[in-house]
Amino acid sequence: MVLLSGGLDSATVLALAREQGFLLHALSFDYGQRHRAELDAAARVASTLGAHSHRVIKLDLRAIGGSALTADIAVPESPTSGIPITYVPARNTVFLSLGLGLAEVLGASDLFIGVNAVDYSGYPDCRPEFIQAFERMANLATRAQIEGRRLKIHTPIIGCSKADIVRIGLQHGVDFSITVSCYQPDPDGRACAKCDACRLRAEGFAAAGVADPTRYK
Amino acid sequence: MVLLSGGLDSATVLALAREQGFLLHALSFDYGQRHRAELDAAARVASTLGAHSHRVIKLDLRAIGGSALTADIAVPESPTSGIPITYVPARNTVFLSLGLGLAEVLGASDLFIGVNAVDYSGYPDCRPEFIQAFERMANLATRAQIEGRRLKIHTPIIGCSKADIVRIGLQHGVDFSITVSCYQPDPDGRACAKCDACRLRAEGFAAAGVADPTRYK
Repeated sequence: MVLLSGGLDSATVLALAREQGFLLHALSFDYGQRHRAELDAAARVASTLGAHSHRVIKLDLRAIGGSALTADIAVPESPTSGIPITYVPARNTVFLSLGLGLAEVLGASDLFIGVNAVDYSGYPDCRPEFIQAFERMANLATRAQIEGRRLKIHTPIIGCSKADIVRIGLQHGVDFSITVSCYQPDPDGRACAKCDACRLRAEGFAAAGVADPTRYK
Repeated sequence: MVLLSGGLDSATVLALAREQGFLLHALSFDYGQRHRAELDAAARVASTLGAHSHRVIKLDLRAIGGSALTADIAVPESPTSGIPITYVPARNTVFLSLGLGLAEVLGASDLFIGVNAVDYSGYPDCRPEFIQAFERMANLATRAQIEGRRLKIHTPIIGCSKADIVRIGLQHGVDFSITVSCYQPDPDGRACAKCDACRLRAEGFAAAGVADPTRYK
């Protein structure tokens, strides 16, 4: 089970899970995000990396709001301090929980997520201590433990710089031109070049010494 | 923040949170459950107990399936052993996660859930050790901890028998005739009298020595 957003990080994670020989089940979320173009990107990534299945769960996080990605709040176009307004409250917790449910139905014991605690936006739910606490909770939440199985949360890029992720992805056959990281792309998935996600991505390609294949508006 | 299903347990929990003087924000889920009549019941309960707000988040758990409540699997009409087929994988984890997100947006530090580990159906995500692990994870997942707040998960009926819950609810002004516990009610919310939820509920009223106000088909 791989949580797949359609961005650069989760595409690399999918490629790493493939490298490890797992049968790949990708899971994406149609959660009312303003950057819905990432869902088309997720479908392309799942297909080109040979995922066995790709599901999209609909979930209206606009009912919660509180973020520039799900409410009528502008996406900042210059760096901010603290936890940024693009933080979606409890998003990784919700996504991992739904991944946990599907993993249980599929009998999967390995759940991959592309969180990153180096070149990231300062979201609390990207930290290793959060992932460890989630894994512990998950093993009490479901029938897995009762039946003697153990769910493992894999975070293969949590300690990587964006440049590392670019290099690793390229080594494992990811075509980054089909991924979308931008928080406010146009309907065709072309990026704004201004938001935090665009900035981190462009810096990653630059630091890796690789031409940026991103399609900009 | 109170997770409100429309059933007997969460109605009692809402009344207990009111008793403690909290401003009540109720949260329900339209998750593709076959017993959607419980959502009308939740709205009635929220209104009669004076909730300040009542939100319903849409979320299609049928994309996960694996349960008689969300897939095309019959609801058992006699007791079964082990974890029953009405168990919805990771449901409480998903619901608590969404409650966590809304709590963060509202600035709420107290999240109530009507899980019960006594007269219940054997679901792993109703156990105290699960709730403790969720609370620990939740405090790492969000900005709460970073900003020096702490989220508490309240489970005021986790150790109560169904008869206790009936008595406590009646003492605190819950009108159980407007609640729906049945897994397969008719569209008007009338109960089947045959499923596990109906059986536990009827036994609770009987053990409490109270007339059963449930509307049956």
